Formats: sequence, structure tokens, C-alpha cells
Amino acid sequence: MTDIQNDNYIATAKAHANIAVAKYWGKRDSLLNLPLFDSVAFSVDGLYTETTAVWDEDDFRDELIINDWQVPSHVMGRVQRILDDIRARMGWSKRCVLRSKNNFARSAGLASSASGCAAAALAASSAAGLELSESQLSSLARLGSGSAARSIPAGWTRWHAGSAPDGSDSYAVTIAPPNHWNLHVFVVQISDVRKSVSSTEGMERCKRSAFWDAYRLEASQAADFAQSAILQRDFDALTKAMHHNMMSLHALCLTCDPPVCYAAPKSLELVQHILRACKAVQVCCTMDAGANVVVLCEGASYPFVKNDIIALGVPFIQTRIGGGARLI
Amino acid sequence: MTDIQNDNYIATAKAHANIAVAKYWGKRDSLLNLPLFDSVAFSVDGLYTETTAVWDEDDFRDELIINDWQVPSHVMGRVQRILDDIRARMGWSKRCVLRSKNNFARSAGLASSASGCAAAALAASSAAGLELSESQLSSLARLGSGSAARSIPAGWTRWHAGSAPDGSDSYAVTIAPPNHWNLHVFVVQISDVRKSVSSTEGMERCKRSAFWDAYRLEASQAADFAQSAILQRDFDALTKAMHHNMMSLHALCLTCDPPVCYAAPKSLELVQHILRACKAVQVCCTMDAGANVVVLCEGASYPFVKNDIIALGVPFIQTRIGGGARLI
Repeated sequence: MTDIQNDNYIATAKAHANIAVAKYWGKRDSLLNLPLFDSVAFSVDGLYTETTAVWDEDDFRDELIINDWQVPSHVMGRVQRILDDIRARMGWSKRCVLRSKNNFARSAGLASSASGCAAAALAASSAAGLELSESQLSSLARLGSGSAARSIPAGWTRWHAGSAPDGSDSYAVTIAPPNHWNLHVFVVQISDVRKSVSSTEGMERCKRSAFWDAYRLEASQAADFAQSAILQRDFDALTKAMHHNMMSLHALCLTCDPPVCYAAPKSLELVQHILRACKAVQVCCTMDAGANVVVLCEGASYPFVKNDIIALGVPFIQTRIGGGARLI
Repeated sequence: MTDIQNDNYIATAKAHANIAVAKYWGKRDSLLNLPLFDSVAFSVDGLYTETTAVWDEDDFRDELIINDWQVPSHVMGRVQRILDDIRARMGWSKRCVLRSKNNFARSAGLASSASGCAAAALAASSAAGLELSESQLSSLARLGSGSAARSIPAGWTRWHAGSAPDGSDSYAVTIAPPNHWNLHVFVVQISDVRKSVSSTEGMERCKRSAFWDAYRLEASQAADFAQSAILQRDFDALTKAMHHNMMSLHALCLTCDPPVCYAAPKSLELVQHILRACKAVQVCCTMDAGANVVVLCEGASYPFVKNDIIALGVPFIQTRIGGGARLI
């Protein structure tokens, strides 16, 4: 552990995890984490990372401590890209020490890398004295983890894929604030086991699936459908957009060689239950590339949905649409 | 119940269920049950139907009794096509009474319609005095249920899609006899609940999936891969062919609108287990359009596989590759 040595180069930021309604799956540039198509997500109030960044001596050996665990330097790669970018802007050779706390399990499909890289980008750039716009921060966070771009703005967000080779137009913006739509969010933690195939590896394998071209064509339109449903607060349209996008992604993964199956039996149990229930009540769900299931519902469906989730016998977090990354 | 009135027009046949390694999914003619592409399957010794057919008076009101249940006439449609075809060949207007017994649950994804229609085709045609070749019988059974074409020949079978508009070249043949490959078969009964979306409806919905064209292209080659693996007794190749074909079919179904999900949580638990195990031991599995899982393994893997299936806590049948339809 490194002591804080310079109070002038310190800042602490908080950022929330986000859950994609129209997912990010497929990169056009894997170094800059530039996506093939736009994605749409919402910030999750109850899942967040708080990170303190300190820049000190001239030494490139950055440090990252997550929940008191000193992350080995060879697995710091993602966050390092964020710090390297800040150093380049500052003309510095200082090192950065990042102390980070998640309030939820890492690598369980709950996008800890998104909230983590967003908090790191805001804390480290602020500690350096940089005043970046929201879109610049979103781009910076993206260098660490693609979906982190969506953990900078608040509420319902859209990450524009952009077309510039340097990624300067590839960032997320708020399409609707947290209070736009009064939905309940349940993050159902089916598994806290680290997934066996990373998202990056999964995306690469999917590009060799026979279904890839069809997926790509459909996914390129998914953000528009999702955004339209959100702006109109049309729950049925949101349900259709979310379910179809989730199914397409997981179906694509199943057709890889070897197949990638992110869902666990309990995930399937809950998803099948929601697929039946959504014909009668306002409830829908999604799974990112992981076993956990995130359920959205309107107020009238809330007691029904909550009882069903309790009956499943797995831990869950009950929360709301969250805000953007901020300094604390 | 109708008494048997004419001993000269009676015959009893037995036919086995079959499980597709390269599946039949997509029709080019839904009246004649003509498939879009070839499929490959094996007969299952432990799952069978025995059917007694009796032709009696001049009366079109056929009867079908399955396990002492009198099937209402409006749901006899499939078998009726077989009987109508026999009547047309005989120039008859007699009616047929079919008494059928399955040794397994109907409509639980275990293809009772295949063994049922195959047994009905053999029993009713023999009772009428028709002497049909194996390929003619296979075509006749197909009129009742597409996959029934594969329950006429023995062992490992290939159903040639054919190209004739009248279906005369669309029948199944044995590509390897039951004793060709000494494999163990486990039919794991995850659910005996009737599936909520029939295969016919599922196939129709899948044609509107964005993944349909990609599926169709791949599926048109699946029978060749599977047949080659079987003829060479190449377990690794069979595993790859079976798993990929299963995943493609189920993935396609997930991308329908509304999605069709035939797997149950317990199916997924077993399939994921087999996907991991198949890297180390000779075991593979498949699911038809239903929740049940059929596992194949070689002798050396047998104790390991059996223990794992027992641990799952669901009923299963342990059996072998079966024979063809025959008179008894």
C-alpha cells in the first residue's frame, strides 16, 4: 500500500454499473474499445464503485487496489490505458495510485469493469487537474472498458459508436434522466463465480459464428428501438426490445465453436418465468454476458415481481435507475 | 371401444423413437411433411410404440386409442393421413381402428409421434395386406409425422429430403446398423409436461427469425458431417456435430418473436455439465424441440456419465441404439 504524498493531486469519484437494453457486442477497434454499433443502457443506482486517485512521484508503476486487494500489474492493463491517456495530456511521467471499492461482486456479469473504469477515469483526470467534458470523460473511461463509456452519464444512456478512427466521437450521452421513468430494478445475483469466457473473448468467438452477419444486421438497429421505447415510456416496446436483444446475444454465443453459454440454470428459470409473466404484467428482464438477471418492472407489478424473485431463493438487490459518475 | 371383427385385416407393429443428431427443422411442404434438408438420427431401443391396426366396416370414422385413451377425431389428423393414403392405394372405404401403447410419456420432446406414426404405418399397411418396401413405409410414416420417416429403418438413419414434389424420394434409410457402434444411450426425462409450442408451430416461427437464412445454410450441411462421424465411429466429430446442431436449433428458437425456449433449467444444467465433461471423456448430448436431454457415451465413460445423471435427480432410461419398425 502506498501512502498519499500530495494532497494537490487527489480526487475521489463514484460511478454506477450500467445494464444494457441494447447491448455492446462486437468491436471495430479492440485497442480503443470502439464498438460496431450503438448501445443503450441504464445506470443502476444500487451498484457502484468509489475510487480515489492520487498522482505522486515520477514513476510509471501505477497501482490499483480494489477492496484492499492489490491488483497485479499484468492485469492492470485496462485501467492503465486510462492513466496513460491522462499522462499524455499532462505531459507527465507521474504514477497514479487508485484505491477502489465496489459494493458488489466483481466479474459476475454485473459490469464491475464499467463502474470501475468510469470512477477511475473521473477520479484520475480530476486529481490531475484536468477538466474534461462529459463526452471526453466517457471516451476516456471507454479506453479502460467499452461499457464504462455508459457509466459516465446519468440515467438512460446511449453510447454512440461513432466513426472516427481515433474514437473521438465514440462516447455515451444521457437520452433520459433517472427520474424520466419510475421503474423498479432488481439485480438478481444468480452467480458470483467469475465467468469462464470473458466478454472480449466471447465477442471474438462470436465473429466466427454462422449467425454473426444476421446478428450484426439486427443489432445495428437495436439501439433505435430501445431508445424509442424509453423516450415514449412504452413498457411493451421496451420488453420486446430488451428480450429480443438478450435472446439474440445469447443465441449467438451458443452457436460459437466451442459454444459459449453464459446463462446458468437458475438464470433460465427466472427468464422463462418473466417471459410468461410479461404477457400479463409490466415486467421484463435482461442478461448481459453473464449468469445474472436484471429485472425491470413498473410500480403496479412490483409486489408480484418481488415475491417471485424471493421465491427463487437467490440474493438480489432492489434498486432504481441511477445517476452519472460524480466527484465525492 | 370397437371390437375386432375381421381377423384377416389385423396386424401389430412395433417401432422405436429416434433422436436426431442432425435435426429436421423446416418444411418445404407442410401437407406432405417434406423437409428442407436431410437429417440424421438413431433409433432408441428403450423407447417404443406398439400398435395394432384393424380394418373393418365401410365407415370413414377411424379410431385411435393410445394407452386406453380414445383420441378425439379432431386431433387424429396426422395419423389420418396415413390411413387415407392406404385407403387410396386399396380403393377402399373401410375404416381403421388403431390401438397403440407407448412405453414413455407423450409430447415430452421424446418424439412419441415418430414411433407412433411409424408403428401405425407398418401395422395399418400390413393389416390391409399391402407389402411395402422399407422406403415406401418410411414415406408413408412421414405423412403422419416428418420424423416418423426415421423410425422405420434400423440403427443410424438418414432421411433424404428428396426433391420430388410428391415426396416419393423423401424417406429414411439405414446408414449404419444398431451394432455398428457400441454406444450407451441415456434418455434423461427432464420434463413430462407437454411442450407449450409444437414443433410445427416452432418451425413456422423460426422461418421469420433474422437468423433463419444462416441457420438454413448451416443445417443443410449438418447431415453430411454427422453421417461422416458415425461411419468413421469418430466420437469427437460426432460430439462437435451434435452439439453444434443442437445449439443452432435452440439458438434459432430463442430469436423468434415471441421467443421459443424449449430447454428447462434442468436441461441447461445437464447440457452445461456435458459441455464441460466432453473435453475430458467421450460423452455428448442433444435436445430435440423439448426439454429432455439424450446423452451418448462410449463404454469407458459409462460409469462417470451414469453417476452424473443419477446426481441430477431426474428419471432416465438407459438404453442402446435400436432397431427398425417390425411386425410382432
